Amino acid sequence: MTQLGTSRPVDAAGAAAIIRGADHIVILCHQKPDGDTLGSGFALLGALRALGKTARIECPDGFPPRYCFMYPGFTGEEQPAFAPELVVAVDIADVQLLGDLRPRYEGRIGLCVDHHPSNTRYAENLLLDTGAAATVESIYCIIQELGVGIDYRMAVCIYTGLATDTGCFRYSNTTARTHILAAEMMRTGIDSYRINKMMFETKSVARMELERRVMDTLEYHYDHRMVITVMTRRAIAETGVPEEDMEGIAAVPRQIEGVDVAVMLQQKEERRWRVSMRSSEHVNSSAACARLGGGGHARAAGCTLEGTLEEVKARLVEELRTELTPV
Amino acid sequence: MTQLGTSRPVDAAGAAAIIRGADHIVILCHQKPDGDTLGSGFALLGALRALGKTARIECPDGFPPRYCFMYPGFTGEEQPAFAPELVVAVDIADVQLLGDLRPRYEGRIGLCVDHHPSNTRYAENLLLDTGAAATVESIYCIIQELGVGIDYRMAVCIYTGLATDTGCFRYSNTTARTHILAAEMMRTGIDSYRINKMMFETKSVARMELERRVMDTLEYHYDHRMVITVMTRRAIAETGVPEEDMEGIAAVPRQIEGVDVAVMLQQKEERRWRVSMRSSEHVNSSAACARLGGGGHARAAGCTLEGTLEEVKARLVEELRTELTPV
Repeated sequence: MTQLGTSRPVDAAGAAAIIRGADHIVILCHQKPDGDTLGSGFALLGALRALGKTARIECPDGFPPRYCFMYPGFTGEEQPAFAPELVVAVDIADVQLLGDLRPRYEGRIGLCVDHHPSNTRYAENLLLDTGAAATVESIYCIIQELGVGIDYRMAVCIYTGLATDTGCFRYSNTTARTHILAAEMMRTGIDSYRINKMMFETKSVARMELERRVMDTLEYHYDHRMVITVMTRRAIAETGVPEEDMEGIAAVPRQIEGVDVAVMLQQKEERRWRVSMRSSEHVNSSAACARLGGGGHARAAGCTLEGTLEEVKARLVEELRTELTPV
Repeated sequence: MTQLGTSRPVDAAGAAAIIRGADHIVILCHQKPDGDTLGSGFALLGALRALGKTARIECPDGFPPRYCFMYPGFTGEEQPAFAPELVVAVDIADVQLLGDLRPRYEGRIGLCVDHHPSNTRYAENLLLDTGAAATVESIYCIIQELGVGIDYRMAVCIYTGLATDTGCFRYSNTTARTHILAAEMMRTGIDSYRINKMMFETKSVARMELERRVMDTLEYHYDHRMVITVMTRRAIAETGVPEEDMEGIAAVPRQIEGVDVAVMLQQKEERRWRVSMRSSEHVNSSAACARLGGGGHARAAGCTLEGTLEEVKARLVEELRTELTPV
């Protein structure tokens, strides 16, 4: 656990004032970048350039091709080099998420814009709106305060941040404000259908094959209330799916009617298994995984277990007996 | 093809005036009812009752348990019997969709509220908004014109219609107006997360098993641009999935990156196959299926072929050669 710092809380007007006071600005995105950190970063970059500021954007893991529609033609290499007057971190809850950029920027972040309740207050100034579904909601407010009109490119970024952080307006973090902002962005003429198709309905051939192989291992326990799936090293090797493309596979069986716990065992070494547990509101994954030496959230947690596949499965089934046996 | 009738076009104020003039009203939903026809029907029913009118709702296929959160406690049997002064059809493009109710109501429908461009103008008065993502958008406007406040129950119905007809705000029919209305509904305190979980993230054990078995048959052609899946009579019988729970299985492989045509063969008899074709914007399914004696839309079409599985597959691969061979 990182110790909490002492950021000065600011609102959108305060954040805009800080930005207005600097001419050379660096924007930072978090490692394993997602639609919200990239959408926030590129929308803000567009606004800074519209204001005539010298700005660049950095991400410890670079800029994935998956999101390139947000930054057409951008490679990261054509950006200006300069000593920043202001460093702005977007959607970054902790300096640890700066990865390789941490040594360069830690202690030098003038403003953080975020929506994670777990924000460790590492920045000098912090705009933290935990009621926002996505950081782009706050970025939008800042751009408004800066007096810059939202153009088509910014709207693509902001919409993408909203859609990806809410599972396309499905998750419980979605609010009336989220929909209002989505409507606002759509009025600029963006093709939300195309964005959502790319973000939610496109799987690589390899990912589809891995998902199929994982689903073939599906087994039920406790009258279909618990399911176990297995992702072996062999399936991973044979399909060639990179780690970053495995997201969400563990959660697939949770959508089966009546399932309260979906457990996926990912083989790390011959006898070492990474356990991903996803649960409904009836089971506390965090508590179950904590008993096995892991941790996480109530609905999504994990731990690592050693043994043969059958041993590990038996241990998990046993561990969930109390939760899943009718009283 | 049903011949086009000659409805009088009305707007929301006109529709509200017609409704205000009647005290005994029947609302009709279409067969194979979905979230939009049921959401429209029950939201309107709530408004009519709030106005003190005597009203009932009818659907040729009854009211599926899947949507019971829109009508808690409702069985359809407790409804008043009366001779209607006004019959209102919601989300019904053609009288054919009245199924068993057709003989009773054909020629007696005073008002139709719909958004399908294919509406056959069978009703005396027609509120047709083809720019609406769902019929509930027009129902909302009518309720506003009637001066009835949208309560929690109506909001659940209207939100469900919006979400189900847009694939949770993904499809290209989603507009800024759709999001504004969703925001409005969320302000009544509805649990949109729970609704979306039930509508989009819940599959029966049998459906999941059938999907798995269909995906196990997946084969690629034309450098992964075409995929074929097979749903045998045996898979259907062994999993016990009813026809109405098979929706969307044919479209699953279309989300694979680079796939332009996804074809699913559903075995109807030993040598008789129902072909469901789903395509990207690069292939016209309607044209391809028309050449095989079928038809449909550009992105979703179908036909029926006779032969062994291998013969039928070969014929389909051959039929798409022109579309899928690089020039």
